[in-house]
Amino acid sequence: MSNGTSEMEIIQERLRPLLEAGRVEELAALLLELELHPSDVADLLEALDDTESQAALLRSLPAELASDALAEMEEGDDRADLLGALEPHKTAELLNELPDDDAADLIGDLEPLDAARILAALPLEDAADLRGLLQYDEETAGGLMTTELVAVRAEMTAGEAVDEVRRQGREVEDFYVIFVVDEQRVLQGTVPLGELILADTESLVSDLVQEVPVTLTADVDQEEVGRLLSRYNLVSVPVVGLRGELLGRITFDDVIDVIEAEQTEDILRLAGVSDEEEVRGDWWESVQSRLPWLFVNLLTASAAASVVFIFGNTVEEVWYLAAIMPIIAGMGGNSGTQALAVTVRRIALSDGPLERKSDAVAKELLVGLVNGIALGLLAAAAAWGAAEWFSLDPQLPFVVLFALWGNIVVAGFAGAFIPTVLHRFGVDPAVASSVFVTTLTDLFGFSLLLGLGSVFLL
Amino acid sequence: MSNGTSEMEIIQERLRPLLEAGRVEELAALLLELELHPSDVADLLEALDDTESQAALLRSLPAELASDALAEMEEGDDRADLLGALEPHKTAELLNELPDDDAADLIGDLEPLDAARILAALPLEDAADLRGLLQYDEETAGGLMTTELVAVRAEMTAGEAVDEVRRQGREVEDFYVIFVVDEQRVLQGTVPLGELILADTESLVSDLVQEVPVTLTADVDQEEVGRLLSRYNLVSVPVVGLRGELLGRITFDDVIDVIEAEQTEDILRLAGVSDEEEVRGDWWESVQSRLPWLFVNLLTASAAASVVFIFGNTVEEVWYLAAIMPIIAGMGGNSGTQALAVTVRRIALSDGPLERKSDAVAKELLVGLVNGIALGLLAAAAAWGAAEWFSLDPQLPFVVLFALWGNIVVAGFAGAFIPTVLHRFGVDPAVASSVFVTTLTDLFGFSLLLGLGSVFLL
Repeated sequence: MSNGTSEMEIIQERLRPLLEAGRVEELAALLLELELHPSDVADLLEALDDTESQAALLRSLPAELASDALAEMEEGDDRADLLGALEPHKTAELLNELPDDDAADLIGDLEPLDAARILAALPLEDAADLRGLLQYDEETAGGLMTTELVAVRAEMTAGEAVDEVRRQGREVEDFYVIFVVDEQRVLQGTVPLGELILADTESLVSDLVQEVPVTLTADVDQEEVGRLLSRYNLVSVPVVGLRGELLGRITFDDVIDVIEAEQTEDILRLAGVSDEEEVRGDWWESVQSRLPWLFVNLLTASAAASVVFIFGNTVEEVWYLAAIMPIIAGMGGNSGTQALAVTVRRIALSDGPLERKSDAVAKELLVGLVNGIALGLLAAAAAWGAAEWFSLDPQLPFVVLFALWGNIVVAGFAGAFIPTVLHRFGVDPAVASSVFVTTLTDLFGFSLLLGLGSVFLL
Repeated sequence: MSNGTSEMEIIQERLRPLLEAGRVEELAALLLELELHPSDVADLLEALDDTESQAALLRSLPAELASDALAEMEEGDDRADLLGALEPHKTAELLNELPDDDAADLIGDLEPLDAARILAALPLEDAADLRGLLQYDEETAGGLMTTELVAVRAEMTAGEAVDEVRRQGREVEDFYVIFVVDEQRVLQGTVPLGELILADTESLVSDLVQEVPVTLTADVDQEEVGRLLSRYNLVSVPVVGLRGELLGRITFDDVIDVIEAEQTEDILRLAGVSDEEEVRGDWWESVQSRLPWLFVNLLTASAAASVVFIFGNTVEEVWYLAAIMPIIAGMGGNSGTQALAVTVRRIALSDGPLERKSDAVAKELLVGLVNGIALGLLAAAAAWGAAEWFSLDPQLPFVVLFALWGNIVVAGFAGAFIPTVLHRFGVDPAVASSVFVTTLTDLFGFSLLLGLGSVFLL
């Protein structure tokens, strides 16, 4: 038992010397003694630098712990290398210990040849099940589900159902909800395990069955799976085929991982980082994931630069307008980003069709008008001071006021309007909005500043 | 049963006319007929504009559905107004239906006077329980937990334990895990309900008990609660007192809400929106939450402006440097934001002390060097073309290359270094990093561009 990190830190003090010396067998003995959780063992595996030490540690552990730790490691190349380094019969032994969704995820990491080699080492029936799961896209309900579940028939009594749960339950990990099916295995509903136990043994399952607020087909996107499970507080959600027949279930823990992954994706996309980049990936992966977006940004920044170039005459005459450009660009960019973040988040957390329709764009316009006049007046006052002090053109404060105000209004509008439109056309609003918004505010802001400048200050 | 949104859209078509006409009683009848889930009823309540219609709808519904729908509504002023509009005895009736954590959340929304009025209308014992929960900070384990749980003694047989579960379980919603305690109610571990049913009725609970990978005290921050429950895939996590005595439990559905709320907070903070702002809040709330940050940004942008002002002579002589400023600022800002988002996310998803220590700052420096030379050469080539065409200074491409390269390297460094340092000093890295990073890249970028410009182009 550990109360969070402090006890883990003490454990770490005992493990680290063994870890650093690569003394794998002693490490295995110690972490069995400490009864470490598979998630902690997974961290230890990741902390070992070379694949050989990782494989040696896995071999020294009981198969149940080793397989759970493998399942808890981060998906990706490191785990695939480790799995490839194990003997096929060892891998098969470990996969046998795991629920089929975790086993399929592990195999999904591998190169096709390695995957085929390992599937061949598994019992025929298990291999067929896994091949079935591997057909589904990883980021769909089918890719998340396990086929291992407990299902009973509606016409059973509660007592018979409990016996059936006892029979099926030995093969299944973490079942909290019993699925109720008819003779065609079409889903009728669910009974929480607790309700089944509370019920009189003679009562019928058909009287206990609860409607499922949501059933998924295997092709539903994982983001939608997360949204529905979180909306309806479900510990486990059924996946059905076209006739309504029960195919599998998705449990809350897989969904928590999905919610975290989707939100990482949103933050990175908003910042112009492709969702291919792993948060702990190496530098080359980062270069590949970020350079294309920076290249797009170089083009859009060049568009802003050409606005300045077009107004070259004004800049040459009224050089101090160049000093005001960073203020216009910065405030526009930041106001736009604020509106964008709130709108993107609002779309992500959308409650579906019954949600109150309120107008995000109108709200952001209003916020822009108010913030714009407040900041515009402040900046104009500073510009007035500077104009007095350095004997600049006395009309400068008015140019600053209207350029800043206008740009902040446009930024708020664009920050709300662009993601809303992208979302309506089925484009992820996080991915492209930020380019459009900052380009628009730069182009508009500089045009307004230099345009006003060329009218009033030349 | 609904397969996601499409069926909801059909339902919506039937509900909307009643909703818009405010025909509350017919609405109540229809949604009972449709067997809508409380989460859907909560959306309907939110879609009704005035508090009186909302209260009327609640009064027309059975208490169980009405209370669950209330609990599913978004926290905040609207819900507090609705609760205040109900008669105290009605509110008390609804609160009685709810688990104590949901009831405490509802009361927590209210003004102190309203809260006292409603607590007075509740049975003495329930009111005392709720007062106990209301002591805890809303954003801690204590604020999330319910005291309603099922606990058995280690010396019982499995059969006795199942009987005990039957006795206690009628009062408790959604129990998936049975807690095992000693005579002092000190937590010994847990038994999943499924394991208890599978076990031989004569076997002892003490032989079935599993160690809990993590126990929390009531003061642990909700963000840490979310991290631990997600790390250890727990459906329910115990909260204990100082002597290890069992106080309550937190279930996965509360934690999913926390994870979503924390991630909204991170995205908004990175964009310079205070975490006070609700995603669906009104315009005045948005002005208040964003204006302070924009004001800070006006100051930092002014610092960048004064760099340009200091190099006024250079800008006056070589006016086209002003056209290059947006490129330098834009590329620096974006590279910095990329590094920042990845680093902040890496910190948020940190796996604790056993995680492999790798150097985020060194990686970002390397990424900056590579991205910087690639983009710098590209921009220099464009500058060379422009210099030829418009007969500008032939040294311009070199100034552009080194200014852009240098700024992108500094941006990557700052984007990784600043959040890491803030985190080490216990400051949320999402909240302040973005100001520091963009200020630094603007200041450094303009100094480098105009400094190089004044040496090579004057």
